[in-house]
Parts: sequence; C-alpha cells; structure tokens
Amino acid sequence: MEVIKMKKPRIVILGAGYGGIMTTVKLQKMVGTNEVDITLVNKHDYHYQTTWLHENSAGTIHQDQTRIPIKDVVDFNKVNFVQDTVVSIDPKAQKVQLEDGELEYDYLVVALGFETATFGIKGLEEHAFNITNINNARLIRDHIEYNFARFNNEPGDREDLITIVIGGAGFTGIEFAGEIANRVPELCKEYDVDRDKVRIITVEAGPSALPGFDPELVEYAMNRLEAKGVEFMVGTPIKEATVDGVVVERDGQEEEIKTKNFIWAAGVKANSIVEQSGFEVNRGKVEVRDDLRAPDYDNVIVVGDCSLIMNEETGRPYPPTAQNAIQQSAVAAHNIKELARGGNDLQTYEFNNMGTVASLGHDDAMGVVFGDKKLFGWSASVMKKVIDNRYLLKLGGIGLLLKKGKFNIFH
Amino acid sequence: MEVIKMKKPRIVILGAGYGGIMTTVKLQKMVGTNEVDITLVNKHDYHYQTTWLHENSAGTIHQDQTRIPIKDVVDFNKVNFVQDTVVSIDPKAQKVQLEDGELEYDYLVVALGFETATFGIKGLEEHAFNITNINNARLIRDHIEYNFARFNNEPGDREDLITIVIGGAGFTGIEFAGEIANRVPELCKEYDVDRDKVRIITVEAGPSALPGFDPELVEYAMNRLEAKGVEFMVGTPIKEATVDGVVVERDGQEEEIKTKNFIWAAGVKANSIVEQSGFEVNRGKVEVRDDLRAPDYDNVIVVGDCSLIMNEETGRPYPPTAQNAIQQSAVAAHNIKELARGGNDLQTYEFNNMGTVASLGHDDAMGVVFGDKKLFGWSASVMKKVIDNRYLLKLGGIGLLLKKGKFNIFH
Repeated sequence: MEVIKMKKPRIVILGAGYGGIMTTVKLQKMVGTNEVDITLVNKHDYHYQTTWLHENSAGTIHQDQTRIPIKDVVDFNKVNFVQDTVVSIDPKAQKVQLEDGELEYDYLVVALGFETATFGIKGLEEHAFNITNINNARLIRDHIEYNFARFNNEPGDREDLITIVIGGAGFTGIEFAGEIANRVPELCKEYDVDRDKVRIITVEAGPSALPGFDPELVEYAMNRLEAKGVEFMVGTPIKEATVDGVVVERDGQEEEIKTKNFIWAAGVKANSIVEQSGFEVNRGKVEVRDDLRAPDYDNVIVVGDCSLIMNEETGRPYPPTAQNAIQQSAVAAHNIKELARGGNDLQTYEFNNMGTVASLGHDDAMGVVFGDKKLFGWSASVMKKVIDNRYLLKLGGIGLLLKKGKFNIFH
Repeated sequence: MEVIKMKKPRIVILGAGYGGIMTTVKLQKMVGTNEVDITLVNKHDYHYQTTWLHENSAGTIHQDQTRIPIKDVVDFNKVNFVQDTVVSIDPKAQKVQLEDGELEYDYLVVALGFETATFGIKGLEEHAFNITNINNARLIRDHIEYNFARFNNEPGDREDLITIVIGGAGFTGIEFAGEIANRVPELCKEYDVDRDKVRIITVEAGPSALPGFDPELVEYAMNRLEAKGVEFMVGTPIKEATVDGVVVERDGQEEEIKTKNFIWAAGVKANSIVEQSGFEVNRGKVEVRDDLRAPDYDNVIVVGDCSLIMNEETGRPYPPTAQNAIQQSAVAAHNIKELARGGNDLQTYEFNNMGTVASLGHDDAMGVVFGDKKLFGWSASVMKKVIDNRYLLKLGGIGLLLKKGKFNIFH
C-alpha cells in the first residue's frame, strides 16, 4: 500500500500594508499551523501607517510612532516572515519572484499597495519628493530642515530654499499642508529664519481643493490653512519640475515658482507589478469579484490599492483608502482560509463607508462621519485620532494602542 | 567767555567673541555712562562659544546652549549695541566701515576673531564644511543627518553618504571626531543605517595627531577614538576636495576617499580685515605691544585671534585660544578705560597657562592642568566641563551658568 503524504496548502501574502498585515493577523487566529503554511513577504521588517506619513514628512511626529515592527503583531510561530522585495508574480505557475529568491504558493493574497503616479509630467521623477514610505517621508523632513539650515549660509537671498511647494490639494496634499504650516514656526525658530520669508504654496490643477468633499468642508479647510499661511493656486496645472523649481500654468501663461522643496502629493496608482504580472487589469488595478478574487485566477485574492471595486450607486470605483483595505482584510482572511480548507463558503465584500476625516495639522481637522454628520475643528481632530487609534487596537490590541496611539487631544 | 563742551570719548569694540564680549562686560563695570560712550559691534545679536561648536556640528548639543543673547550679558543702558558686519577699519581716520553704516571712534578694540585657512588646497572653499560659527555648525549637523536620510533612498550602495572625513587631527578635528563618534550610533538608529557601513576618517598631514601634545596624551586620545570607530590616516596630506570626495596622498600615491561629508578642521587664521585695513601684521596678525596696543596706533587695542604675542621661552607665538582671549580682556578693559580717561597707567599682559583639556566626546577627555598634571578619561571630562562652566560664570554670573552650563557629568 502506498502512503500519500498530504502537503499543507501554502498561503503567501504579499505586502504588509493595511490590507496585507490585517489579513495576516486575522488569518493567524483562524487556522492552525498543522493545516496551512502561511508566509508573509514584505520589503521592511515593519508595517507603517501610510495615512500618517504626511506627519513624518513635516516632522511633526517621529517615524517610530508611524511604524510597527511586524514581529509585534504577527505571530512568527504561525507565520513565516520573509523580508524581501517582490519582483514579479507568475499566477499561472503559482510562483512569486523575489529579489533574493522565489516562493511557490497554492493560495495568494496580493496586497502590494500603491506607487506614485506622475502623469508624465516632465522632471517629476527627478525633482519631486513623494510621501509614500518611511524612508522618503523622513527624507522630506530632513530635506526641508537642511534647506532651512542652508538659508543663513548661502550668499544672496535664497528664498527658494524656504519655499515649500505642494503638488496637489487632494487629501494628502491638504493634510501635509496642515502639518507643515504648523511646523514652519518651529523651523524658523530652530534655524533663525524670518517667518515672513517662508512660503507654503499648494498648487492644484482642478478648480478647487479636495475634489469630492462637501463645499462647506472645503471652504473650512482652505480658510483655516490660509490663516496658517498656506497659499492656494487652484486651476493651476504643473507643467514641469526642474532643479530650480516648478513651472505652472496660470491664466494661460507659464510661470516658474522657485523652490528646492517640491512635494508631489497629487497622484497614486496601483503597484505596477500587478499589471506587469499579467493579471487582467482596469486602470492598472485588478477589478476583483465580489469575493475579492482576481477574475482570472480562483486562488488569488487582491486587496487594498491594487484592487478595484465599483460603487454601483455612483458608477465609479471606491477610492483606494486605508478604510477600504482594512475592511477587505476580514473577507480576505475568511475566504483564503476557506479556499485552503477546500471549502466554498466564500464571503462577499461590501464597503461600509464610515466617513472621512482630513487633518489640518494635529489641532484641527474636518470631515464627514456617521453618514452625513459634518465635523469641524477640535471635535473633528479628536475624531481623526479616534479613527487612527481604533486601527491600532484592531491590529495589535491595547498594548499596541498605548505604544503608538495619538493621545495629544488637548494641544 | 567761551564754553567748551567736551565730547565724551568714544570707545568702539569690534566683535563679540571671547575677547570682545569679555572686554565689554568688564569695561561696562569700570566706567560711567557720563564719561565714555561705548559701542559694541557684532554680526549677530548673540555671542557664542566657539570651543563648543564641534558639539553643535555633530548634533550632540543644541546651538541654543552654545549661544548667549548679547542683551543677557551686556547692559544696553551702558553700551550701544550695533548689529552689523564690519567691512574695514581706517585706523588713520579713526573710522570703521560697516555693511550698513560707518562708526567713528576715539579708542578701538579689535576682537574680530578668526577665519578658515585653506592653505590654497584646491576645491576646499567649495566642497568643505567649516566649524566656525553657529550657522555653519548647524549646517554640518543637518548636512550629515540629511545624507544619512538619503542613504536608504538612493539606488546603489552610496557609502559616500555615510562616510565622514575630517581634515586635520588638531584640537578641533579631534574634538569633532569624538563627538561624531558618539553621535553615529544615534544616527544609525534614527535613519536605519547599519553601523558597520559608516566610516569616520581623520586625515592628518603631520606625522601624528595633536601636534604639541604630550605623546602619552596623544596615544590615549587616538586609542580611545579608534575604539569608538574613528580611523586615522596620519602623514597624509589632502591634495584636493571635489564634489565626490577628498583626494589624499598616501605613500606617494594619490588616492580618493569618496565622501559627501568633508569637514575641514585643520586651519585658522586671523580675520583678514585686520591685514586689509593696513595694520602692521605678522602672519596676518597684529603683533601687539605688551599693553595689547597695536604697534602703529596708540588708540587701538587688539585681542584674541587677531593679535599675536610671542612666547619668549619657546620663541613661538602663543596659540590663538579662548583662554588667551579671555585673559587678555581684563588688560584690554583696564587699558582702554585708562586711555579714555587720559591716564597712562597701562597694564602689561602676560599669558598664564592654565592648561588644556581636549574632549573626546562628552564622556571622555584628556589634557594637562596645573602646569604638568595629566588627566585622562572621566576626570578630564569633568575638568573640561568645569573650564566651560567657569567661563559662563565670569561672563554672566550664576544665572547664565545655570542656563547654559554643562552638568551632565555622570553620563
């Protein structure tokens, strides 16, 4: 008689952003090590809160508050952790190519997040800074500080060193503007720079800041930021970034804003590995089935910014948010477990909009919660921190919340 | 009968470094506002401790500990303070040209300090950083931090970003090496850089570090710094600084050390305004009479790094130190008062060597005190802080000492 040794199904999760880490944390509680083999792959040995990076970039919070060691939330007795960079996926052969090796899988969760979209704007790749990870957020902080330090060391009146230009007045651009506006007085004190010489300019191609937001909220945000010294140039597309600054188009004329601090916060797209790996895509994303599986592969689930789900009401995709990725992780974890066990009781994902709050510096915010309740100022700012803290609680319990939470609600 | 209105004698003091500020502080206690008119001219509205700048450059102490607002130690009811930059002196016409005006004087104290000597080394002016004032010390701190931040953002293995080259193993070079060696582990933690990849290289043209120091002390210093990871290249002249690094000559061969952090700490000379203003000079300095007056002008006193006094015993000039400048200020204040009153009871200056202690990071030092007592390690480090604190006490009393003193003797 022949003994057939059953191999345990191999689950591989790519990426430890919101979608990937939450799927891993949920999955490790649902399955036993005797039934499946789980591997999490991530470039760094930490998870980070992408929605806090504007604060790290401005230097208003430290990166160690934003990032969380993966070992602190993932049980390494249950999950193999591989610190490596994904190069490509071969969904037909069920293999993932890493920089330093290769992984085979039976079931795959793709949670590779986003990258910057430059929309083909000339010079953007070379001359703009992006707020996309811990390394480049920290670099932005240091870059701005360094230019403030240079200001009193360079001959002539080098106001380009203390001019900060933000490309895009969407969510990230506005949140960064709020933080840097709070930070500038500290920078001026630290580097002996006259506040009146510093400029913060937000350049937006669209007719207004924060497209998609309620006009009353947009008005509130712009007024509050202007009061903190932020200038807005709306209806002003950026034509080019150069070593000296940013070329914009205003009233049909090209105009140069001299700056050494250009932060591009206007565009994200799905990680291009997804499209390059041969998945069927819509605008670079995998338009997933309602159980979050790729349309063309039964054993691949895609979550977060690499996935696309249509909002039937509006006929437009749901925006790629942390909220969406986190909600997907529950369904992703359940379904991958079900598939690995050979079951077919797959859950259906439906986005439940909890609202959106945008911070305008740590002391101010605005947004919509509970369906249609508008919040402004301090109460919105507290709500924003409640949302941030709630995630930490979900991810790592009360211990993580106490370690990394935001509790400065009375400043 | 004709009434002759006597004009009060005008005393002008140029520079608020060690010599200038101490002369001013002493003088304001000796004379009444009804008898003389005292004006202090300085580029900034603060005095700073040049001997602490290596700590600001390394980022181990903050510039606000090193600098002291002039208004905190100078009585503005007794002294006119002019914040301006000296352009030139016309000792014949008794005028001082400032960037934004002109001053006439009856009696002048020249205390304009030092500037960097490049010895004509190619590229040094463009590519090296100097530890000479608050602005450029802060810039060095931020420059090194910025390059550490860049390290994880640049493609390839850019170890030039985390290589620090110090030109010169004299007093400043050694003290900076000690500080930056202490700082590097913090930088590695802050910027996620592997300590083993960071290099600190001290390049010295002479056959050994710390020329003029007792060999036992030199040996101690080099051993301790090497234990902290500092590499020494002695007998190694720097031939050129470039945008990519430093070209040195070793064993007759030119060799490039790739670095973006090149700190030149090997040479100082007197402020060149002194020579340009037509004073009789020896190696760019005014070889003063024993009452500290310029040989060619009876109404001009020169103190600090712009003055030169021969050590009769050795036949060589006393080194330009803070200790020397501070000691001179007592004689300078007395003599300028005496001259302004029309007296001729001028004092004679004699340097009283109190010893020298060089720090090797805040936790270590070595030096000679009380004539010939050698100190090492913790006791030397405490002595170094005692010396620093004693100056604050002299300058601004117990209040200033408590505000700016160094009390971390148990770390």
